[in-house]
Amino acid sequence: MHTDLVAALDIGGTKIAGALVDGGGSLLVRAQRPTPAREGAEAVMGAVNDVLAELAASPLWHRARAVGIGSAGPVDASAGTVSPVNVPGWRGFPLVDRVAAATGGLPVTLVGDGVAMTAAEHWLGAARGYDNALCMVVSTGVGGGLVLGGKLHPGPSGNAGHIGHISVDLDGDPCPCGARGCVERIASGPNIARRALENGWRPGADGDTTAAAVAAAARAGDPVAAASFERAAQALAAGIAATATLADLDIAVIGGGVAGAGEVLFAPLRASLRDYATLSFVQGLTVTSAVMGADAGLVGAAAAASTVRRAASNGVRAVAAP
Amino acid sequence: MHTDLVAALDIGGTKIAGALVDGGGSLLVRAQRPTPAREGAEAVMGAVNDVLAELAASPLWHRARAVGIGSAGPVDASAGTVSPVNVPGWRGFPLVDRVAAATGGLPVTLVGDGVAMTAAEHWLGAARGYDNALCMVVSTGVGGGLVLGGKLHPGPSGNAGHIGHISVDLDGDPCPCGARGCVERIASGPNIARRALENGWRPGADGDTTAAAVAAAARAGDPVAAASFERAAQALAAGIAATATLADLDIAVIGGGVAGAGEVLFAPLRASLRDYATLSFVQGLTVTSAVMGADAGLVGAAAAASTVRRAASNGVRAVAAP
Repeated sequence: MHTDLVAALDIGGTKIAGALVDGGGSLLVRAQRPTPAREGAEAVMGAVNDVLAELAASPLWHRARAVGIGSAGPVDASAGTVSPVNVPGWRGFPLVDRVAAATGGLPVTLVGDGVAMTAAEHWLGAARGYDNALCMVVSTGVGGGLVLGGKLHPGPSGNAGHIGHISVDLDGDPCPCGARGCVERIASGPNIARRALENGWRPGADGDTTAAAVAAAARAGDPVAAASFERAAQALAAGIAATATLADLDIAVIGGGVAGAGEVLFAPLRASLRDYATLSFVQGLTVTSAVMGADAGLVGAAAAASTVRRAASNGVRAVAAP
Repeated sequence: MHTDLVAALDIGGTKIAGALVDGGGSLLVRAQRPTPAREGAEAVMGAVNDVLAELAASPLWHRARAVGIGSAGPVDASAGTVSPVNVPGWRGFPLVDRVAAATGGLPVTLVGDGVAMTAAEHWLGAARGYDNALCMVVSTGVGGGLVLGGKLHPGPSGNAGHIGHISVDLDGDPCPCGARGCVERIASGPNIARRALENGWRPGADGDTTAAAVAAAARAGDPVAAASFERAAQALAAGIAATATLADLDIAVIGGGVAGAGEVLFAPLRASLRDYATLSFVQGLTVTSAVMGADAGLVGAAAAASTVRRAASNGVRAVAAP
């Protein structure tokens, strides 16, 4: 069998990962570079080119028919540009055209990383078989994506489902995005740790002040640590309930490092969802853990390339270089 | 020309309106009854039957090919049932089957009233030509609907876009829906009036304590009246920004009695949107007034029947009685 492959790129503030992905979601060839996030636009593009060159050196490269990119956001799929918050050198960077040129004219699909993760969970993960889903990552930031009517819904800009920056506390703390009380401002890992520290939690002898350490303390019975996760869960519940109420969803899938806290997060989350998901059509919402792990970005970028290109929907850009 | 017509029903807590609607959105025949909202299920259905009988007495009835219903929510389009908050006698009432039976087996499409209004504004109103839109009614309650990818998006239950009951103030005042700090709890007409009264506003000699009277006072320079509209605008802005961030929208259209306050509402709303719609892909969001007026529910119910049935999308039910 010599089936078609998709060259997938997962572009984040820390690393740029690439893979050749087959029609079953297997990663046949991998490549990776650190993101030179503090350097200029061409240095970052250089790392992308290195990843692509390493993939292109594979004997399987000739089977690549398309490129799928999931990038830290915001992205602009209609313009083919990216402006990742954590990569200051890229502002309106024409990533789609540059990757098309670097790959000899393969069609390129661009979506946000939350949309890519959603595509992976819908294709092969926890949202498989669900026609209306929110998938989200709760980690250093909070991102997400939507499946509507059985199909990935990137929206015209490729950013739909960006739950991290909806306000659930309109008078709340200022968020770096400029708004107040965003889900991310309350529920991200760094904010869980910050709140625990502000309220008197102290790390162990190892000095670990990550959300994972707060989770461990909560499991060991520390009430301040538990309360910080409960507040995060409340904000997530309000955001998930809002999304379900607006988009008429069947399931919410939660991944990322903070979701790794398990019941420390999910028990108060389920309780808070009962408080906020009150209308009849959202009371039955299922909430569950993501299953695709660290490769979700690559698998999802490949899926987005396939599904978005097949649907040619919503103006999401898929271009071939001249 | 003897083109097909749609029999449209707009079912609210106060009145049940019906019309025969042509392919251009004109209402050729109308009928209306008060909703016997405090009576039993069959009394309410009796009023629906009276409206349908009056339409059926028209010589144009033989051209009716489908029925479109926009109903006060929540609705359950997949089950074909309605449970309008303000009509206690109807809980899980099988409206689709009953209307299908009453009309000799015409196919029946059911959506929420916010979705119907959205269909009207997208077909012939302020959202015409926009592929990704939120349309909403701010009145006694707050409802809404979505257009995504150029098409009405009722969602599987027919309630998508229900912005009135998303929480923008997770620690806020309890809402009758059971949650806290919902957009409706802050921004509906009765809540605008309540807040103004609580903060010291007093009505004029006519004793009018409606939101319209508060708007008139705000226009005349009353700071407490203006502040109540500003708070409503802040909640609407947070909700609209959340919806735009989640659904990747181009435009938000606002109708209903409270929108009739004009700049008393829209000036602080535009200002607050700058505070909450911060991400690059939503900063360009257009916000404007609805234009379809009191017939939006009927025109939209007809449009929903046409568009939903054509798309046969998302499990929205359109059944023919046996």
